[in-house]
Amino acid sequence: MNPLDTLKELFTSFPGIGKRQAERFVYHLLRQTKEFRTQLAQTITELDNTVATCDYCKRFFTIKESQHDTACSICSNATRDTALLMVVASDTDFHNIEQSGNYKGLYFILGGTVPVLDKQPAQKIRIAELKKRLQDKRLKELILALSTNPEGENTREYIMRELKTLQKEKNLTITTLGRGLSAGAELEYSDPETLKGALANRQ
Amino acid sequence: MNPLDTLKELFTSFPGIGKRQAERFVYHLLRQTKEFRTQLAQTITELDNTVATCDYCKRFFTIKESQHDTACSICSNATRDTALLMVVASDTDFHNIEQSGNYKGLYFILGGTVPVLDKQPAQKIRIAELKKRLQDKRLKELILALSTNPEGENTREYIMRELKTLQKEKNLTITTLGRGLSAGAELEYSDPETLKGALANRQ
Amino acid sequence: MNPLDTLKELFTSFPGIGKRQAERFVYHLLRQTKEFRTQLAQTITELDNTVATCDYCKRFFTIKESQHDTACSICSNATRDTALLMVVASDTDFHNIEQSGNYKGLYFILGGTVPVLDKQPAQKIRIAELKKRLQDKRLKELILALSTNPEGENTREYIMRELKTLQKEKNLTITTLGRGLSAGAELEYSDPETLKGALANRQ
Amino acid sequence: MNPLDTLKELFTSFPGIGKRQAERFVYHLLRQTKEFRTQLAQTITELDNTVATCDYCKRFFTIKESQHDTACSICSNATRDTALLMVVASDTDFHNIEQSGNYKGLYFILGGTVPVLDKQPAQKIRIAELKKRLQDKRLKELILALSTNPEGENTREYIMRELKTLQKEKNLTITTLGRGLSAGAELEYSDPETLKGALANRQ
Repeated sequence: MNPLDTLKELFTSFPGIGKRQAERFVYHLLRQTKEFRTQLAQTITELDNTVATCDYCKRFFTIKESQHDTACSICSNATRDTALLMVVASDTDFHNIEQSGNYKGLYFILGGTVPVLDKQPAQKIRIAELKKRLQDKRLKELILALSTNPEGENTREYIMRELKTLQKEKNLTITTLGRGLSAGAELEYSDPETLKGALANRQ
Repeated sequence: MNPLDTLKELFTSFPGIGKRQAERFVYHLLRQTKEFRTQLAQTITELDNTVATCDYCKRFFTIKESQHDTACSICSNATRDTALLMVVASDTDFHNIEQSGNYKGLYFILGGTVPVLDKQPAQKIRIAELKKRLQDKRLKELILALSTNPEGENTREYIMRELKTLQKEKNLTITTLGRGLSAGAELEYSDPETLKGALANRQ
Repeated sequence: MNPLDTLKELFTSFPGIGKRQAERFVYHLLRQTKEFRTQLAQTITELDNTVATCDYCKRFFTIKESQHDTACSICSNATRDTALLMVVASDTDFHNIEQSGNYKGLYFILGGTVPVLDKQPAQKIRIAELKKRLQDKRLKELILALSTNPEGENTREYIMRELKTLQKEKNLTITTLGRGLSAGAELEYSDPETLKGALANRQ
Repeated sequence: MNPLDTLKELFTSFPGIGKRQAERFVYHLLRQTKEFRTQLAQTITELDNTVATCDYCKRFFTIKESQHDTACSICSNATRDTALLMVVASDTDFHNIEQSGNYKGLYFILGGTVPVLDKQPAQKIRIAELKKRLQDKRLKELILALSTNPEGENTREYIMRELKTLQKEKNLTITTLGRGLSAGAELEYSDPETLKGALANRQ
């Protein structure tokens, strides 16, 4: 296979990218300067030496930015509230919540979600690592921050079942993000579940 | 103008209907039976004798379905909670909330919303009628159930300002529907305001 | 059923209209003046006395606008080219082509299309009436103006088979609208069939 | 800037890619194997040694795949019709047309289009190189294969003006791709220009 086709195929594996857009990417790269291509290739190569997975929250982090080689800048930050652990599905979910700026506790990245009727849920998310993480005695509340779609609901229910014993032993509170009107919501189109939460959480 | 064009023009005034769909409506009617057309015309004519505006909540209601000529089936229903009054923008908002089945208080239809920077807000919504409605001594809480878009926010702020004095006099609680994750929300795409509410309302 | 629900149900039968929009239509009508509702009801009722189906092209036409009770203003217009007959699926297709202003022949409305694998095509379109219409000795060319989707293609093929004998007998030319780039087409996204036509029809 | 942010920024320059999807790309790469990342970086680096711009048609081509270092596999293919030159805006347009398989002549890539009212059109497309290319005595027909949107139309008109003299001198035919119904077109929604072309090109 020639390099144009190889590159097109590699880009096709990117999330949300079909053949046509992969091809546009290839031509886009060809029209850039040689410097641009060199920088892109080098940065991709560098990832292996500069990015690690945090031992505590399992998210990807830049080694240089953290004091520690094995803990990310949040997990090694003494000002974060160690009593709170927010469980999220992915690095992108973590990123969006952290950027919103309202949460000061710690995180745990599940690395996926559990599809409805899935037969091997323990292989879809880091449930074993989560249980291990809960041994931390400073923890008081676990916040399950999952999408409110069927797969998110299923993941939440699976985690609740799996943590039942541990929750009692450790006297942990497990909470779920509140339901209500999202920004820009129109009442005419809001579903019953959302309206129920919005009414219960009125203030 | 011939009846086909007149009918097309009348349908063009319907919400969300452009010229092309109005034309499709006309041809659709022509392809129906004469009975269908007669029933449609009669039902439209009947509206004037069978539907009234409720004196209390200002919504449209079918006279036959209520015990009273001037109060709708909800406002005249003795089992509803008269301490709660939910303020909504339109009949469609009311309808969606009532169908969700979680609310047992009364309603008030504003008949519109106040656009941002509008100079005559008192002419856009039934603010005078709302003040009058608040004379009801049984009322304890006013729930502002408005869309969370800029126009909804502006309407909410205008009502809050207008009711300031009355609220103190009558010792009324004024609440707003809670913010949080709506059904089907994905955390990766949730905005800061929604996440803030979802975190505050976690349970 | 009360008139609000009856009306909502009638509107739900309109093309492309779901329950929610039907409800919006009902509230829209209620907010209009009594005069508006009266005019709408009357115009719908009038259709039965003022609109007829043309004996020749089968389209709906306003009786007053034509010289004849049984022929529409186009079929009874002496300046149209009686050698050309354009076969279209519906009144809306006819309307769009006639408004484009480039065609001066006559029309024939099929009243539908034949779905792929349909077992009773003769009941889906006016094929018998079309054969009868082709007895007109002035006709020289039949233009099949059908959508270029699978159902349009299937309809075209069915008509071609049905008219085979008649075409020879009457020495009729049967043509199809040309393929090529539509207005606003982007070459990057044009399909092979379109490009083939565009290349063949280059000028 | 850390490598994650650098990479995110580089991906943001890709066509159609915003910040959020660029971030998804970064995390996608992190979740791949080290081998995948290495292959991607190497293929990008290789582009500089393996891909060249064809002297004749100006498109990008893989050196190895052509007999010549300076001519692409199409321009150096003796079986292509050297009397036909199709002028297209971009490599992606070329690719789509070549894949459709109906064209056996040669190509010329303009490398862009001329925006409406642009003041320096000669800098937007390879007009000088095109004139040079037209010195080829074997050429008989120039096919302008441009999108039928305003920018494509403007580019076509600019080229026609620029080539006026040369066209006479060389006795060249200049054609444009034909207008008509594209695949999947619905007659109800076809615009007048398209219908005009479809009618003129009927067959």
